[in-house]
Amino acid sequence: MDVISVIRTKRDKGRLSPEQIDWVIDAYTHGAVADEQMSALAMAILLNGMDRAEIARWTAAMIASGERMDFSGLTRPTADKHSTGGVGDKITLPLAPLVAACGAAVPQLSGRGLGHTGGTLDKLESVPGWRASLTNEEMLHVLGTTGAVICAAGDGLAPADKKLYALRDVTGTVEAIPLIASSIMSKKIAEGTGSLVLDVKVGSGAFMKTIEDARELASTMVGLGTDHGVRTVALLTDMATPLGRTAGNALEVRESVEVLAGGGPADVVELTLSLAREMLDAAGLTDADPEKALAGGAAMDVWRRMIAAQGGDPDAPLPVAREQHVVTAPATGVLGRLDAYDVGVAAWRLGAGRARKEDPVQAGAGVELHAKPGETVRTGEPLLTLHTDTPEKFAYALEALENAYDIAAPGTPFTPTPVVRERIA
Amino acid sequence: MDVISVIRTKRDKGRLSPEQIDWVIDAYTHGAVADEQMSALAMAILLNGMDRAEIARWTAAMIASGERMDFSGLTRPTADKHSTGGVGDKITLPLAPLVAACGAAVPQLSGRGLGHTGGTLDKLESVPGWRASLTNEEMLHVLGTTGAVICAAGDGLAPADKKLYALRDVTGTVEAIPLIASSIMSKKIAEGTGSLVLDVKVGSGAFMKTIEDARELASTMVGLGTDHGVRTVALLTDMATPLGRTAGNALEVRESVEVLAGGGPADVVELTLSLAREMLDAAGLTDADPEKALAGGAAMDVWRRMIAAQGGDPDAPLPVAREQHVVTAPATGVLGRLDAYDVGVAAWRLGAGRARKEDPVQAGAGVELHAKPGETVRTGEPLLTLHTDTPEKFAYALEALENAYDIAAPGTPFTPTPVVRERIA
Repeated sequence: MDVISVIRTKRDKGRLSPEQIDWVIDAYTHGAVADEQMSALAMAILLNGMDRAEIARWTAAMIASGERMDFSGLTRPTADKHSTGGVGDKITLPLAPLVAACGAAVPQLSGRGLGHTGGTLDKLESVPGWRASLTNEEMLHVLGTTGAVICAAGDGLAPADKKLYALRDVTGTVEAIPLIASSIMSKKIAEGTGSLVLDVKVGSGAFMKTIEDARELASTMVGLGTDHGVRTVALLTDMATPLGRTAGNALEVRESVEVLAGGGPADVVELTLSLAREMLDAAGLTDADPEKALAGGAAMDVWRRMIAAQGGDPDAPLPVAREQHVVTAPATGVLGRLDAYDVGVAAWRLGAGRARKEDPVQAGAGVELHAKPGETVRTGEPLLTLHTDTPEKFAYALEALENAYDIAAPGTPFTPTPVVRERIA
Repeated sequence: MDVISVIRTKRDKGRLSPEQIDWVIDAYTHGAVADEQMSALAMAILLNGMDRAEIARWTAAMIASGERMDFSGLTRPTADKHSTGGVGDKITLPLAPLVAACGAAVPQLSGRGLGHTGGTLDKLESVPGWRASLTNEEMLHVLGTTGAVICAAGDGLAPADKKLYALRDVTGTVEAIPLIASSIMSKKIAEGTGSLVLDVKVGSGAFMKTIEDARELASTMVGLGTDHGVRTVALLTDMATPLGRTAGNALEVRESVEVLAGGGPADVVELTLSLAREMLDAAGLTDADPEKALAGGAAMDVWRRMIAAQGGDPDAPLPVAREQHVVTAPATGVLGRLDAYDVGVAAWRLGAGRARKEDPVQAGAGVELHAKPGETVRTGEPLLTLHTDTPEKFAYALEALENAYDIAAPGTPFTPTPVVRERIA
């Protein structure tokens, strides 16, 4: 087997054989295939695609590159969720404790933000004292005692994916559906969850800009999960507009706590409950009542125990950025559009995100939305508040927001996009 | 400027801007763009193409990455030839002294073989004492005193191409017409020749398998040369069958000397004369008579002086391989096909070529053809002789030859393919 013949097969629009896939993933993990060879193959895959059988084998080879976790010792059924990433997507924060409060075990191995989308671990690290890195034993202990755990994935899980993901990030080969699907699913399957709900975002603030691409990604992943014995469901959800009214680390934790306290923005509550129902169904807990668990405070109790179990103080005040800048509405009328991508880029530029993996993030930075599409705004009233510790970035963030919103004449009819657009199982 | 946006532009089928091209070539040459990023871009170029303006800028940027040579101090007009590479393609050896004998200065900066095609320098190194590496001063001295020089290109010429060529070789991105054209032409233009004749091979033993691809490559290169003030002509020549009756280093030198002595295989003589006429025309030496220079021994005189000027002994016996194996004809009839690629692979496996840049080659190894397509063969008579110092490779070489030839019934009409198929200027 040699790597050039593997690259040529895909370059010339052929099918990679199971042997070629197993060999190239193993050889890349161990350094026998070089980064420049794998990136050429990744570009060929991005441009020429892989069929279902190739994607399945690719995923299996990435799982086989590392260890697999085992939750079979738990008395509760496991339920996991994965989001493909969006702006203001803090759903994991209220969702994990809520589903745990309803009887499932929720192991959320999460990531950090890169580019314009935020990362769950970055958000939680704004809680004073909270630690993202746990040993496998600590993880199982938190999961067993509180019902939920949100932490960083260990290095042993799908190391081929870890290496390939970092490579794709610097070679313009992120946006390949076969590679996105196998990356997500190899980690989730290796993690050993019994059921999985995928939140596939679609719209300007998501990787998938069109419903067709989102559908293809979702059905690819559902197929992969099902083939590996994981009960898998996907919801295609709107990411044309940011979720909730905040994008930024501590800002999103605050909004998540509001949801756990029974309040919070309607779209965040709706998506949290929709995903909770899917997770509980997939875990076989069809009698659970997530609405009651949220309203009655049971979810908040799990949140507090979960944060505390990882060293965090759920009562400590959250960090606040040193400077604020208010953007006012330039006209009176109906807010017709508030672009998720532009808001995400602005939050990122204000310091909520990072340009390179090793960059730090600001806990308090981000964007607060004072209106959502469909609401009426008035000339001179606050539309957005920008938060940062580095006010020299305001101008750069405002540039990203130049075409971020439209205001229609007062009384213009507005058709809202549903939060959950489709369900694929 | 950032490399991911450059990669994405081409990945998404866009046009690279002049600024993007200049930046990426310069940044790659200096190490600011990594190999894995350039290989992803090379694959995107291979699959999505570049238009004429992009290829012209890419070539100019590669020329600008290094030094340019200057032959303006010579009293003779310069004429250069480049072949895209084939099996048994020893034409440079008789051609350079022949054209020099007719009054042109012929600077042939040549390469080594890689894969199934042989390299001119490897062939000449089978002449005892001959040196491929010359300083610029030595090169100009040999050229000035003998009229011709065949040597390795210096490191200062188009270093971006040198780096990119090595990268393409290990990443399955060799077969991209824009990259092949810019690689060849950046070196030839930087070398400073006044005129250039391109021998674009087409057929199984060439990089270009179809006449359409060969035409596209040829007209791309002719356009690039013309735009840079180099009088450029291309001949599309047959490479479905090996050239002459030998493939291998010393074997091909011997055949070249036969041609210089007024003999040799008809196809080698015909192609040598065709290319010589084009080179002399392009150099403005329209009165020259290459046929006479070959028959009268003037070309042989230049050959002997040129070999001697680079330390070689033109009278020394050439190396002979330690072992021979004869393949006999399995039937009596007309040899209908003798596949150039298969013969090239067999010669390579016997030791005439190398798998990696750093491998040595065997001077004596190769394949001798006792019949060419159109000739009659008889059961049990020699068809091919394999030569090697490593007889354990015979079986491996014979495998490559399993489907290398067809023998038609005696008397079957045979239509020869012309040596020169088309001319593009």
